[in-house]
Amino acid sequence: MELRNDLLLRAARGEETERPPVWLMRQAGRILPEYRAVRAELSGFKELVETPEKAAEVTIQPVDLLDVDAAIIFSDILVIPEAMGLTYEMVEKVGPRFPQVIHAQSDVDRLKEVEPEKDLFYTIEAIRIAKKQLNGRVPLIGFAGAPWTIFCYMVEGKGSKEWSKARRFLWQEESLARSLLDKITDATIAYLKAQIEAGADLVQVFDSWAGVLSRELYAKFALPCMERICDAIDEVPLTVFAKGGGHFLQDLASLNCETLGLDWTVDPLEARKAVGAGKTLQGNLDPSVLYAGHDEVREQTNRMLQRFGGTRHIANLGHGVYPDMDPEKVKTFIKTVKEYQQR
Amino acid sequence: MELRNDLLLRAARGEETERPPVWLMRQAGRILPEYRAVRAELSGFKELVETPEKAAEVTIQPVDLLDVDAAIIFSDILVIPEAMGLTYEMVEKVGPRFPQVIHAQSDVDRLKEVEPEKDLFYTIEAIRIAKKQLNGRVPLIGFAGAPWTIFCYMVEGKGSKEWSKARRFLWQEESLARSLLDKITDATIAYLKAQIEAGADLVQVFDSWAGVLSRELYAKFALPCMERICDAIDEVPLTVFAKGGGHFLQDLASLNCETLGLDWTVDPLEARKAVGAGKTLQGNLDPSVLYAGHDEVREQTNRMLQRFGGTRHIANLGHGVYPDMDPEKVKTFIKTVKEYQQR
Repeated sequence: MELRNDLLLRAARGEETERPPVWLMRQAGRILPEYRAVRAELSGFKELVETPEKAAEVTIQPVDLLDVDAAIIFSDILVIPEAMGLTYEMVEKVGPRFPQVIHAQSDVDRLKEVEPEKDLFYTIEAIRIAKKQLNGRVPLIGFAGAPWTIFCYMVEGKGSKEWSKARRFLWQEESLARSLLDKITDATIAYLKAQIEAGADLVQVFDSWAGVLSRELYAKFALPCMERICDAIDEVPLTVFAKGGGHFLQDLASLNCETLGLDWTVDPLEARKAVGAGKTLQGNLDPSVLYAGHDEVREQTNRMLQRFGGTRHIANLGHGVYPDMDPEKVKTFIKTVKEYQQR
Repeated sequence: MELRNDLLLRAARGEETERPPVWLMRQAGRILPEYRAVRAELSGFKELVETPEKAAEVTIQPVDLLDVDAAIIFSDILVIPEAMGLTYEMVEKVGPRFPQVIHAQSDVDRLKEVEPEKDLFYTIEAIRIAKKQLNGRVPLIGFAGAPWTIFCYMVEGKGSKEWSKARRFLWQEESLARSLLDKITDATIAYLKAQIEAGADLVQVFDSWAGVLSRELYAKFALPCMERICDAIDEVPLTVFAKGGGHFLQDLASLNCETLGLDWTVDPLEARKAVGAGKTLQGNLDPSVLYAGHDEVREQTNRMLQRFGGTRHIANLGHGVYPDMDPEKVKTFIKTVKEYQQR
């Protein structure tokens, strides 16, 4: 299936583009009334993730409603621990809860090897359906959590600000930590390959909790997993987004991936200096800007675009859009990118 | 009262010191069994904060037990909103909860002007008692939360990862936000001056949630408050610690304060370059290092000390010590700093 809009893929590969492509993290989600309507028919977030037809439907909504240059499959990073044998519940207004967590090597040994077509059938099937229904309009992005971020949840069992238990493991249980990270990495690679096989045109790895690690610990434990993933995926372009990882951007620059995502604390000019010309950068408008008035959204978006210099750039927010944001502001952001003329 | 150990103050003022002084954020707290014993006699954290004799007692414990070069008064940053009229509860294992939050200008107008000797008598009195009992052994540090961080709690009413409501206020309710920040700043200045009057030898302002703001928003809303505080306090040295603020360190460098605190994501060499020679730097060992073995703690501490170059440096962690840490590791950290010979 020929893509009619392949701006995202060309930008990722470093080819000339007439303007930066644009999409938003969490574009398929609670900002859209149409999403909330689909979700209301089901028992909750997890049922939506696990119902391929519905997951595909909300995946496509932002393409129809917001006119973004890419769809991203509706799923959750925590499907990987689930497939490995640690089930989770998504508690409304609280977040994920794992009844069982990793304490000892025996817990790691008990984890299952993931067969994506079986264990993660729901997301793989959702990708096939979404891909078919998109019918070549825009590329479809697949994704997974980064091993360090998944490790955090598997050790702590719920969200945390400091992730001090997970970090304690790195110092006190090094071999256990490595074996767990390795297993997560294996599962992640298999999962991403299955997503690509099913039709994902680009994949993104989200390292949501990268920012709690020192540069040294990231380099020692998290980066090797990212290296393995980047080296294993050569079928489609890959994006690495290490939130809060501005302090080791130079290290991320050595990864064998096409694109690095930036949060809104990173200056695009500094990032380009640290990363060099060889990679595409994605991001990075402060999401809170979308709370401002339309004029301010336009001004801030244009300023952000200028700082990226219009080349090897995929426009996005610096993190996911917040659920209470007005879709009209999101549209203004998207429209501003689309009208951007490189000066 | 002459201080017998004034290393902290000399380091803050940029005078020659034989070695860097050392203390730890949250040194008076749950890591010490002796603290937990005092706390167990009382109904909870808040009663301890509000009982001057007991607050003074736990303030001095780390001087006796850990041999640090400074005491920091045992209190909480949330005493300021409380004194302004927004009471809070400290819910065990959950964190602070404010039954009322700021919604509108009328809520701001209703806030009380803070008279520290009356409204915050408990902490001021605790400082007087601690100062007397310290008897000149080491300096006593006073502290307050930074206006932006206090603003976050007063708007959201509880902890948050994103503080998106607080950030929304900055875009949608600019004048309300400014008037609230102004009132908090006034209260903070009065409070710090009362602490100094009562005996604090140095004061530190904690901007715990600085890291969620873009450089632009920090400069527009948070920095002016910090400027006012720094300019108002000239009786003793002042330390500004903006956690997660590595992306606007250059802007903090312009503040009229003696010391800037660094979290563990900031490289000391880069920080020195950004800040220049005119300020003392405080920090910044990754707290999770104290989960490691004693040899590793020593090695990592020495490496950190070397990166600061032994001059204009106050040794500390990059954030508070975690409650489940072994006090023996804390002692190894402190001892390593004390034995450090500049190479």
